[in-house]
Amino acid sequence: MNLVVVGSVAYDGVETPHGSVGRMLGGSCTYIALAASFFTETGVVAVVGDDFADCDAELLSSRGIDLAGLERTPGKTFFWQGVYSDDMNDRTTLTTDLNVFAGFDPKLPQSYRCQPYLFLGNIQPALQRSVRAQMTSRATVAGDTMNYWINNTREELLETIREWDVLLINDSEARMLSGQYNLRRAAQAILAMGPRSLIIKRGEYGAVLFHPEGHFAAPGFLLEDVCDPTGAGDCFAGGFMGYLASKGITLDDGAPWQELRRAVIYGSVMGSFCCERFGVERFRHLTRAEIDARFQQFKDLTSF
Amino acid sequence: MNLVVVGSVAYDGVETPHGSVGRMLGGSCTYIALAASFFTETGVVAVVGDDFADCDAELLSSRGIDLAGLERTPGKTFFWQGVYSDDMNDRTTLTTDLNVFAGFDPKLPQSYRCQPYLFLGNIQPALQRSVRAQMTSRATVAGDTMNYWINNTREELLETIREWDVLLINDSEARMLSGQYNLRRAAQAILAMGPRSLIIKRGEYGAVLFHPEGHFAAPGFLLEDVCDPTGAGDCFAGGFMGYLASKGITLDDGAPWQELRRAVIYGSVMGSFCCERFGVERFRHLTRAEIDARFQQFKDLTSF
Repeated sequence: MNLVVVGSVAYDGVETPHGSVGRMLGGSCTYIALAASFFTETGVVAVVGDDFADCDAELLSSRGIDLAGLERTPGKTFFWQGVYSDDMNDRTTLTTDLNVFAGFDPKLPQSYRCQPYLFLGNIQPALQRSVRAQMTSRATVAGDTMNYWINNTREELLETIREWDVLLINDSEARMLSGQYNLRRAAQAILAMGPRSLIIKRGEYGAVLFHPEGHFAAPGFLLEDVCDPTGAGDCFAGGFMGYLASKGITLDDGAPWQELRRAVIYGSVMGSFCCERFGVERFRHLTRAEIDARFQQFKDLTSF
Repeated sequence: MNLVVVGSVAYDGVETPHGSVGRMLGGSCTYIALAASFFTETGVVAVVGDDFADCDAELLSSRGIDLAGLERTPGKTFFWQGVYSDDMNDRTTLTTDLNVFAGFDPKLPQSYRCQPYLFLGNIQPALQRSVRAQMTSRATVAGDTMNYWINNTREELLETIREWDVLLINDSEARMLSGQYNLRRAAQAILAMGPRSLIIKRGEYGAVLFHPEGHFAAPGFLLEDVCDPTGAGDCFAGGFMGYLASKGITLDDGAPWQELRRAVIYGSVMGSFCCERFGVERFRHLTRAEIDARFQQFKDLTSF
C-alpha cells in the first residue's frame, strides 16, 4: 500500500437529465480510492452498515483496493439522494440519511499508519485531525472540506488544514473560507492559513493549482455527454493524489512544479471519466491506456 | 490598412463594485479596433453624433486607427449605461439610447474595400451582409452577434454567418443558436451552419476554439483586480483578428492550426488587459512588450 483514503462509503440515489438510479455505490472515499487505484496501491478507511453488498466490496477489491480499514457495523450504510438541474451545474439534496456514518470514528489499521500518502475526504475537521495523528509516518497529506465545516467549525478547520500539503476545495468554498471573491486573492489568503498548496476546483471549467511559486490553470475537459457529475470532484482528488503517490512526489521545498501540474491534469482526466456514466460505472472497465490517451488529448487541446 | 472593423462607437456609463464612470468612450467597434491596433493597421466603420469629443477621436488616431469610415452625423452618439453584479458575471442595462446609431447604414470608403481582413461587430445581420457585399477583395471575415438577433432575425442571421470564416459568440448565445446545452454538441451544430470555425467565449473561464480539425481550450487569465469587464469580449475579438491579420493567416483549407491557437491566446491577453481599468483606459499606455509578456505568462500558467 502507498495511499490511505479516509471518507464516506455510501449508497446514492441520483437523478440527472440523462436518467435516474435509485441506489448505487457512492461516497467520497469510494470515488477517491477508485480513481487513485489506477495509479497506486490504495487502502480505505470508512464505515458501512450490514446492508453493504458483497458485489460492491468486490468492485473495490477488484481494483486492488485494501479493505482492512472498511469497518462493518450493525445498521444501514449512509444514503444520499439528489437531483441535478438541467445544466447539471446545481443539485438539490432530497435525502441525507447518515445512518452508521453518524458514529464514524476512523481507526487506522496498523498497516496503514506508516504509509507515505494520506487523503482526508470531506468529514468533520476534528476527525480529519485524529486520523492524521494516528499516522506514524511523516505522510504527505491532502484533504477536502465543505461549506458546512467552513461555516460551523471554522476554528477547528483552520487548525486542521494549517499543516496540510494540499487543500482541495471548489470555488464557492474558497470564497467562503477566504472572504475574497477574486480567486487569486482568495488563494493568497488561504495559502496564508498554512497549506503548502491549494487546488480550486471549478467544475466544468477546470481547476487551478496555487502554490507559492505561482499558479497553473487547467481548463475543463469538454465531454460530448455528461451523464452524471456525482463524484467528479472526488475523482479529481483521487487522480491527483494517486499520481503524486505513484511518483513518490512530496511537497517539501523544491517540489517539482512540473509534476504537480501533471497531477492536476490526471485529476481532471479522472473527473472527466467519472461523468461519462452513472456513479462508479465508468471505472469497472476503464484502463490505464485510456487514461494516458486522455492525458495526451488534454495536452493537444491546451498547448499552443 | 489591413483590417476593417465595423460596429458601434458609443459613450458608456458603467458601475462596477470598483466604482462608477458616468460617461466614457465605449462601443464594440472602439474596443475591437483598439485591441487590434496593437497588431495590425486597422480602420473603423461606425457612426457618431456631433457630441463626439475630439479627444476620443484623437485616442483612436494615436493608435494609428484610420477614421475615414467614422461618419459624423447631426444628433447624439449612442449611449449605453449599465451596472454590474457583485461578482461582475452579470450586468443590468439601465439605459440604451441608440441615437444616431439607430440609422447606421455602414458605407465603406473606397480604400477599405480591398482590405484582406474584415471584422463585423454585433449589428443587425442584414447590415453585416451589406458590409461584406461592399468588399471587393475575398476578405477573411469574422464576426459577432447577440441573443437579440438569434431570437428575432434568425433566418437572416443564418444566411449571414453561413460564409464567415470565424463566428465569435459567448456560451449562452451558442446554446441559444444551436439549441444544444452541451458545448461540443452546440459547436458541432453551429459549424454545420457554415462558418469555418467558431470561438465560444466563456467570460472569466476563458474561450474554446472549434474547428473541423478539433478544438482548443484556453482558460481565463486570472487577474488580481477586475475593475470593469465592459468590452473584454470585444478586445478578445480584436486581439484574435489583429494577430491573424498581422500574420496574413487565412482560414482556407490548410489553415495553420497552431497560429489559430496563438490568436486565441492573444485574444485572451487583450481581454484581460481590458478588465484592468475602466473603459478603454488600459489601452492608453499599453505596450506590445506588455502584451507579449502576458502571452508568455499564459504559456507558463497552462503548459505541463
